[in-house]
Amino acid sequence: MSILFKNADILVRREGKIDFLRSAYLGVEGAYIDYVSEKAPEKKYSETKDMSGKLLIPGLVNAHTHTPMTLLRGVGSGLPLQRWLFEKVFPIEDKMTESDVIIGAQFAILEMLAGGTVCYQDMYWDYSALAPMVLESGIKVNAGAVLQMNDPGAQWAKDFFERRFAATERFFKNYNDAGDGRIHANMQIHSEYLTVDESLERCSDLAHRYGMEVHTHISETRLEHEECIQRHNETPIAHFERMGLLDTGAVCAHCVWVTDDDLEIMARKGAAFVHNPTSNLKLGSGIAPVKRAFEKGVNVALGTDGTASNNNLNMFEEMHIASLLQNGANCDALALSPQQAFDMATINGYRALHREDSGELAEGKRADIAALDMDKPHLLPDADTLALLVYSAQSSDVCMSMADGRILYENGEYKTIDAEKCKAEYLAAAKVLLA
Amino acid sequence: MSILFKNADILVRREGKIDFLRSAYLGVEGAYIDYVSEKAPEKKYSETKDMSGKLLIPGLVNAHTHTPMTLLRGVGSGLPLQRWLFEKVFPIEDKMTESDVIIGAQFAILEMLAGGTVCYQDMYWDYSALAPMVLESGIKVNAGAVLQMNDPGAQWAKDFFERRFAATERFFKNYNDAGDGRIHANMQIHSEYLTVDESLERCSDLAHRYGMEVHTHISETRLEHEECIQRHNETPIAHFERMGLLDTGAVCAHCVWVTDDDLEIMARKGAAFVHNPTSNLKLGSGIAPVKRAFEKGVNVALGTDGTASNNNLNMFEEMHIASLLQNGANCDALALSPQQAFDMATINGYRALHREDSGELAEGKRADIAALDMDKPHLLPDADTLALLVYSAQSSDVCMSMADGRILYENGEYKTIDAEKCKAEYLAAAKVLLA
Repeated sequence: MSILFKNADILVRREGKIDFLRSAYLGVEGAYIDYVSEKAPEKKYSETKDMSGKLLIPGLVNAHTHTPMTLLRGVGSGLPLQRWLFEKVFPIEDKMTESDVIIGAQFAILEMLAGGTVCYQDMYWDYSALAPMVLESGIKVNAGAVLQMNDPGAQWAKDFFERRFAATERFFKNYNDAGDGRIHANMQIHSEYLTVDESLERCSDLAHRYGMEVHTHISETRLEHEECIQRHNETPIAHFERMGLLDTGAVCAHCVWVTDDDLEIMARKGAAFVHNPTSNLKLGSGIAPVKRAFEKGVNVALGTDGTASNNNLNMFEEMHIASLLQNGANCDALALSPQQAFDMATINGYRALHREDSGELAEGKRADIAALDMDKPHLLPDADTLALLVYSAQSSDVCMSMADGRILYENGEYKTIDAEKCKAEYLAAAKVLLA
Repeated sequence: MSILFKNADILVRREGKIDFLRSAYLGVEGAYIDYVSEKAPEKKYSETKDMSGKLLIPGLVNAHTHTPMTLLRGVGSGLPLQRWLFEKVFPIEDKMTESDVIIGAQFAILEMLAGGTVCYQDMYWDYSALAPMVLESGIKVNAGAVLQMNDPGAQWAKDFFERRFAATERFFKNYNDAGDGRIHANMQIHSEYLTVDESLERCSDLAHRYGMEVHTHISETRLEHEECIQRHNETPIAHFERMGLLDTGAVCAHCVWVTDDDLEIMARKGAAFVHNPTSNLKLGSGIAPVKRAFEKGVNVALGTDGTASNNNLNMFEEMHIASLLQNGANCDALALSPQQAFDMATINGYRALHREDSGELAEGKRADIAALDMDKPHLLPDADTLALLVYSAQSSDVCMSMADGRILYENGEYKTIDAEKCKAEYLAAAKVLLA
């Protein structure tokens, strides 16, 4: 299977700097891009698509989310964080069955694909339950089995941890690199505050044994950050470093309250910083030091967090807000450049997710691509295409999403998911859960 | 001409609190709403529209913008503010002809209508040039002739002020209440920093004579706010109050650096605060004290500012960012409620623009309405419709925009503007200006 896109505007990189080819060609052979040029290729492709008026960009990466929480979209809005969690979110999550979790995630995939997101990192349950559905969808995911230790004195908590610990290893063995690498298995440690050192030590051993990187929530709220310092006399990042949990290329979500020292540790250890601006703002967690992280050489990616605290999975919105917020919070119109914002949603995200073979529309890279229809009032004139992408474009401008050379979404139609069936099952599940 | 919407979900207010009617009826007779109920009306309407799966909300109000600046969308992104203005924006604006200004504004109206905005306040040129086009479009606008005094020692600046001063009165006489009130004429004073007391005194006299309210930029940047204090030993708000410029119901854009005392003056004088979060963030101006303004009883409306500093005219995005930003900046998940954010974009905007006959879907109010298609992945399930509107909805979900009972936009089609012709002229103008 090979596809040639012709007459497309194409976002490319020249020595790291974003540039655009006009009315150009991009060829896809199998899962890879094999041609990018303003000249027509000599090779014949099995299918040709005219992309006049369309812009091809790398498919977006949602580097931190909790997809099944789409079922909780809007629940408890207007409540303070603790009441939102304990009165609304947790009681509903307690009722969720395995089929709810699967259908919630599948519906989230519909939303992500329609908005140009073709790769994400999830944190929910034991992902063995979701992996077959995700493989069938064609989207790419980094996932595992979420490890937590709510109460080291309680047998149920110990049992829960043991089950998930075994599930982590099992998921890695069964699913790492499944679907030609579309699934990347890793170690999902909920957070410092929902674990104890004894469990973290075992996680560290397992991570080192398999070379699994750790995905975790770090310093999301000031309270959690400060309580860690009281407990361990060091920040969550420093604590994770000491436990060896940053040795395998960790992915740290939120990082709202990380210090300069933390950022230096992250840069040194190659740990990625996943910024979740909407969630951090909405829940009143604060404004993460993204500009500072870039200055310190940390790889900064971008995520929506779960729908319940966003309330959508819109990576254009996230990119837009990330960019604006750093300028505003730093009182500096140049705090975050359009390219930095765009890179967070694309190449930095792939790098954070240990997918260096993607994130760029270049020969030899994976064909993870989104196409935008640029013939809209809010996208004209085109004085600066990158500025249009970061400040003006909307996820609804996406007209095609492709992962590993396979078109998954095109002009409102899904190629791998029965969207009507998925919606019906999703609404039925939501009706029971929200009753 | 009368229209009945049936099977619609309808956003209504009960004792000020937002609520929703389900599968209900809304009748429009001429420019007014004459029926809202879950029961079918007895009256026959000339046209009936089935709105199954659609939500009717008040049409959005963009309370501070500069529409012709759509022509400068994305220009100079990545430059610091002063270089952006002096190297990019001003040289292009100097080249703009009257027909450029008109076509830029008309194209902006396409974008606004497609996103549910049916009323706006503009600040650009002498609006006599734009009024015929705006009247034909059917959209509602508050406007005038922009007054400034760049250099009190220079004859050209004095002449400019005199021309615009005469134009302000002429526009008021010719266009105030034109189109059954669709145009509302007011006094457009650029800012304290681009005027001198002598010119402000004359403005104040004229405003009092006609009962015109003042629309101005206030305390947008820290520098401008502090320079006013140095010049006058009082803040811009205090200075405008002393000059009598807040006596007629002023509309103050930005207000990023206003003090508690300023807010108390605004509350006492009934001056509106127009928040422009995207522009304030993007240009690094800062974060406006919106939560505080609400607490002080100030009427807070919402605007996009000009496209050049946004870079679009998307009021859903603006509402979303406004809401998130106050929560984040105040580290308080309840800093701004979903209703406060929604009110800023609707009823508070109409109130700020002296249009108390609109902003609510209720009998006797003007039929200024937007309809949203809620059957989208990012809008399901509907656990909390108001939260969906504020946190999840996108301007691309708008399927109909109506002002004064007239449908101006519906399912991608414009009823009063030849969109193809407008686009062709707009792109031709942009090509010359940006060359």
